[in-house]
Amino acid sequence: MQHDIRRLPFQEALPRAQRVVQTCLNAMIPEGQANDLLNAMRYGVIGGKALRGFLVLEGARLHRVTIGPASMAALAIECLHAYSLIHDDLPSMDDDDLRRGQPTVHKTWDEATAVLAGDALQALAFELLSHSDIGSAEVSRSLVYGMATAAGRVGMVGGQMLDIQAESKTDGHTLAEIEAIQNGKTGALIRWSAMAGAELAQAETEPLRIYGDKLGLAFQIADDILDVEGDEVTVGKAVGKDEAAGKATFVSLLGLDGAKRRADELVESACDAISIYGDDAETLKEAARFVVNRTH
Amino acid sequence: MQHDIRRLPFQEALPRAQRVVQTCLNAMIPEGQANDLLNAMRYGVIGGKALRGFLVLEGARLHRVTIGPASMAALAIECLHAYSLIHDDLPSMDDDDLRRGQPTVHKTWDEATAVLAGDALQALAFELLSHSDIGSAEVSRSLVYGMATAAGRVGMVGGQMLDIQAESKTDGHTLAEIEAIQNGKTGALIRWSAMAGAELAQAETEPLRIYGDKLGLAFQIADDILDVEGDEVTVGKAVGKDEAAGKATFVSLLGLDGAKRRADELVESACDAISIYGDDAETLKEAARFVVNRTH
Repeated sequence: MQHDIRRLPFQEALPRAQRVVQTCLNAMIPEGQANDLLNAMRYGVIGGKALRGFLVLEGARLHRVTIGPASMAALAIECLHAYSLIHDDLPSMDDDDLRRGQPTVHKTWDEATAVLAGDALQALAFELLSHSDIGSAEVSRSLVYGMATAAGRVGMVGGQMLDIQAESKTDGHTLAEIEAIQNGKTGALIRWSAMAGAELAQAETEPLRIYGDKLGLAFQIADDILDVEGDEVTVGKAVGKDEAAGKATFVSLLGLDGAKRRADELVESACDAISIYGDDAETLKEAARFVVNRTH
Repeated sequence: MQHDIRRLPFQEALPRAQRVVQTCLNAMIPEGQANDLLNAMRYGVIGGKALRGFLVLEGARLHRVTIGPASMAALAIECLHAYSLIHDDLPSMDDDDLRRGQPTVHKTWDEATAVLAGDALQALAFELLSHSDIGSAEVSRSLVYGMATAAGRVGMVGGQMLDIQAESKTDGHTLAEIEAIQNGKTGALIRWSAMAGAELAQAETEPLRIYGDKLGLAFQIADDILDVEGDEVTVGKAVGKDEAAGKATFVSLLGLDGAKRRADELVESACDAISIYGDDAETLKEAARFVVNRTH
């Protein structure tokens, strides 16, 4: 199989992932249509960091998977992630007007369009993963099953529900409980993203699973730190919401310095896990360091 | 393969489908948990007619598919259908307080729980179809792809969006436009349900595809008739909403008698399409006749 994804430093590989995702999205949902549903779906996917799509592309590159299948899996996870953000922003959920510095989907269109665009993006994710161009039926089934479980009641949605209920819990949470919430809400799909490239190649997934596991937790700790230290303009969404809601976070439990130390340790473990890939894994290591140092 | 689904008359086969769906649901989400998300998901699935699950089981029976895989596919479509109803009932959508004679999910819990329960039910549908117990990876992929396309932007969600926009269209719709809306909104997933049994057996799907096609349209026409002729208690949800909303329907376009005639013709075509199965298809023929004659 031709190895057609070149290794780039992280700061170039991330924008490349955004372009790859957008090109694949254009093929599935062409631009410039007079259709609110399709435009809201596109709006939800475009403009994100595409960190999850990047992880898919890097994992694929490490296993010499070609860009076609890799970009379909990258778009699939970006669709799934975009749907979760659109629904999360709804007035009945987090009630956010701003996402990535832009008006949220229900502000740009309306609530009904936001509900439906999210629903259709989830379906599109599974459409992409079950498309015959993505690889063998075995690969397809494994990617679908992994995403469905990571996205559902024991994964992302389950974590979101725990997170909502945590806000009304007055006696506080333990670190283990916070980790369980984040593992569902964010961790499961970051892990899926990291492993997808190995899945596409039907190769050993364990090193990338551990990498994704550690990265996901570091990512959420960094998010909690940003909610305390960041400002709304650079973060691109409302900040200080956790404290205002009285929510237990990694920062409230570990302290700011303790949270930063824990994030650094996780990044080290993530990098160690993929050392067997040698220099080829350098971009993924840069990504892990970026995640804990990002300001937006 | 052991043929373990006995042919029953429709009036017994439909409650059997409800039981099969509930048994399979109990295995995936056990009863009596202190978890709002899981309970809301169960509430959304249980209590429905399980007509789509019935279609899956009948198609499976015609092809000697065993009850295990058949019941997983039946539960998958009931989860997908339940999610669509939960989201459809939301205040920002149809704003219905009553479904199947019971308070809707957002009335029983709240809006956030209803959004998340719907989202998790869609994920569960794809989890079931990609489970290794359902059959070969090829069967799995085909079922997932068929459901994803039938559920998404060109299928159910696309149809719902057109339906919402139709309410604000003042110059009325043609019959072709109404058929396009219904084909997406209801037709695509009824067609999937009818074909799933043949897909599970990797057999010819065409007769059941035509049956599902005709049945789906007849079903929507019957729904429009019920909205005019039914009363809220027997229908189990609010009626007279289409006329109040000034929506073009099969009844407003064809007249009440014309709509009934068209539904009868479609039922005849549906029955003709599956005549190659002989007496074994009698239950599916009864189902088609029931659909246009139902009062609840």
